[in-house]
Amino acid sequence: MTLDAEITARATLETAAGVATLTLNSPASRNALSLAMIDALARSLDALAGNDDVRVVVLQAEGPAFCAGHDLKELTAHRNDPDRGRAFFDKTMRACSALMQKIVTLPQPVVAAVDEMATAAGCQLVASCDLAVAGPRARFCTPGVDIGLFCSTPAVALSRNVAPKQAMEMLLTGVPISADEALRIGLVNRMSADGARIGALALARLIAQKSPQAIRFGKRAFYAQSEKSLSDAYELASAVMVENMLAEDAKEGVAAFLEKRAPTWAEK
Amino acid sequence: MTLDAEITARATLETAAGVATLTLNSPASRNALSLAMIDALARSLDALAGNDDVRVVVLQAEGPAFCAGHDLKELTAHRNDPDRGRAFFDKTMRACSALMQKIVTLPQPVVAAVDEMATAAGCQLVASCDLAVAGPRARFCTPGVDIGLFCSTPAVALSRNVAPKQAMEMLLTGVPISADEALRIGLVNRMSADGARIGALALARLIAQKSPQAIRFGKRAFYAQSEKSLSDAYELASAVMVENMLAEDAKEGVAAFLEKRAPTWAEK
Amino acid sequence: MTLDAEITARATLETAAGVATLTLNSPASRNALSLAMIDALARSLDALAGNDDVRVVVLQAEGPAFCAGHDLKELTAHRNDPDRGRAFFDKTMRACSALMQKIVTLPQPVVAAVDEMATAAGCQLVASCDLAVAGPRARFCTPGVDIGLFCSTPAVALSRNVAPKQAMEMLLTGVPISADEALRIGLVNRMSADGARIGALALARLIAQKSPQAIRFGKRAFYAQSEKSLSDAYELASAVMVENMLAEDAKEGVAAFLEKRAPTWAEK
Repeated sequence: MTLDAEITARATLETAAGVATLTLNSPASRNALSLAMIDALARSLDALAGNDDVRVVVLQAEGPAFCAGHDLKELTAHRNDPDRGRAFFDKTMRACSALMQKIVTLPQPVVAAVDEMATAAGCQLVASCDLAVAGPRARFCTPGVDIGLFCSTPAVALSRNVAPKQAMEMLLTGVPISADEALRIGLVNRMSADGARIGALALARLIAQKSPQAIRFGKRAFYAQSEKSLSDAYELASAVMVENMLAEDAKEGVAAFLEKRAPTWAEK
Repeated sequence: MTLDAEITARATLETAAGVATLTLNSPASRNALSLAMIDALARSLDALAGNDDVRVVVLQAEGPAFCAGHDLKELTAHRNDPDRGRAFFDKTMRACSALMQKIVTLPQPVVAAVDEMATAAGCQLVASCDLAVAGPRARFCTPGVDIGLFCSTPAVALSRNVAPKQAMEMLLTGVPISADEALRIGLVNRMSADGARIGALALARLIAQKSPQAIRFGKRAFYAQSEKSLSDAYELASAVMVENMLAEDAKEGVAAFLEKRAPTWAEK
Repeated sequence: MTLDAEITARATLETAAGVATLTLNSPASRNALSLAMIDALARSLDALAGNDDVRVVVLQAEGPAFCAGHDLKELTAHRNDPDRGRAFFDKTMRACSALMQKIVTLPQPVVAAVDEMATAAGCQLVASCDLAVAGPRARFCTPGVDIGLFCSTPAVALSRNVAPKQAMEMLLTGVPISADEALRIGLVNRMSADGARIGALALARLIAQKSPQAIRFGKRAFYAQSEKSLSDAYELASAVMVENMLAEDAKEGVAAFLEKRAPTWAEK
């Protein structure tokens, strides 16, 4: 089943296992985040968000790069606008930042599968996912300093994933890091020797067996509490636990656990 | 000397070395955090907080599990309440969150000694301690997704200890991590091949020799500043440094250092 | 060219490569942060901030220690003041906290080169730099608990670099960590077997080739966004990206990239 037939991005859905695979599918442009690509991804995520058959999303890419970041040709073309591009740059940056936050607020978990280079906003895309798996050839970089445009928006996601000195080294030098290094500093969860897709799919299928209702409660709570003081975070999370306990899946899941049987999750 | 004779939790105090050992002592229930256990631990911590002979607390457990998390039988029994358990769930979550924060606000440092599995709120207990030592068989998991109840409150403590992708992997998969992995991601300080208690006790005895006054100033400041902006954090910490300098132990400690002799700390 | 001829600190500038080297140069006092040293460093940083020839700063030290932290003799002498030292302690802590924040707000990146022991506020100095390189003999500690004065201000910088349990272990035990351990927990970026200065200089020279304009936009944005919620951080960073795109270096840098030639950065 194809959710979205955009030429620049494609979302296909494996209903059997509850895992949707969203593929950046513009190899010729190295999957650059043109406004069209940003829009296609955003609309695909919107469709996935409302689809109760989808329990986990794998974000992967076709072609020689995972994602090259912003579409520099498209941005440059707008330098000829009467405002020197300001309005278009603003529109692009806002759309891209909204896309990244859409991943964070998506009810379902998103697992990035990175087999090639993830550059600038492409690296930000990986950092914005809940989980990430790297293949042996995967590399990650934020080389805006080489083109006079510091990766300030990628830094938002990167600095929420890795320690500040490691983030700063990537941002100030622009030098790519390997899959191993990305694993060491916490930017990815796993290095999958057989390729990122196999590792990401295994992770996604495992998560797809869990209670989608519980995951919906929990993913939202996770990011919401992370921005609060400890006592406010506990206030929020305690309230979520109570609602979660009163929902269908916890009733079934806890009972199944005590009765030593497998639980059956609610459809929604 | 026994501080607390609760059947569900026990606090014994080694006065000689200034190290109190608080033991979860309900092996049959895998040290589940029933309301009684939460209450016993909270009252033990209150007693320890006011005891100037106690310089460090080691939190350990008897039996085949460090702590299994919430008492699911107790929670489930309250599903028959007229409100379907809402009031009891709320009471339990609030009491448990207060217990975790009591560890953070305890004047003395708390070192977790984990030799077996720490599950859900049990893992949260470890994350809430200032330091943690794992034995070779220790494991850590947040498997709420398997019973339809996302570990949203454990996530508060976990996400303040480890990087978000590592926390999310534990929360979304429920898969236990080993002592080595816990060390790698920062959830524990040390892996102690001879068992967690030996390692935790060594750490506790070392800390028990330090100025308790300085530690009281510092532990409070550490967590308070961590929730502030950089400039507010420095404002707070600078003020604490001044008060600490004017207190007895700094006067003695700095003088002893300059005179190349061992310091004698104030009793309180 | 010497920017500052203070006896206690020295800033020399390699104009050729755009790398300024600021050297703590009071070996006899183990580069202790006396008020004079703090002042000399602060004034050197002010001079560097306004110098457009300086693209990167390396902070290094002469003598047997990188920096021993506060000058305990100087602090102790003021215990005889009518206010028992309160005003002087306050002045010192505020000046030191301001120095640390001056590194963070310096337009240029600062790379610490640590070849020997960095103690207490000396360790804080390293943590406050954007990047840090350790030599094989480098060690890091926050041993205030041994002199009755918890390292509460160093904790501000340390806890923003490493995970809380790792920071707490250093703060509660006072035990020095090695260069390898500092690398593992994220306090330094690299261990340089040939000595920290060689490694730091290599890193600095690499960064000095990047767009200074972009780095100015980015370093400020990096620390500003890190204190905000995700949506506010993206709001801020998106606005910075637009201004950065409209600035001279991005115009040149992006064009050069698309034309496959080397960029020429603006002088300022």
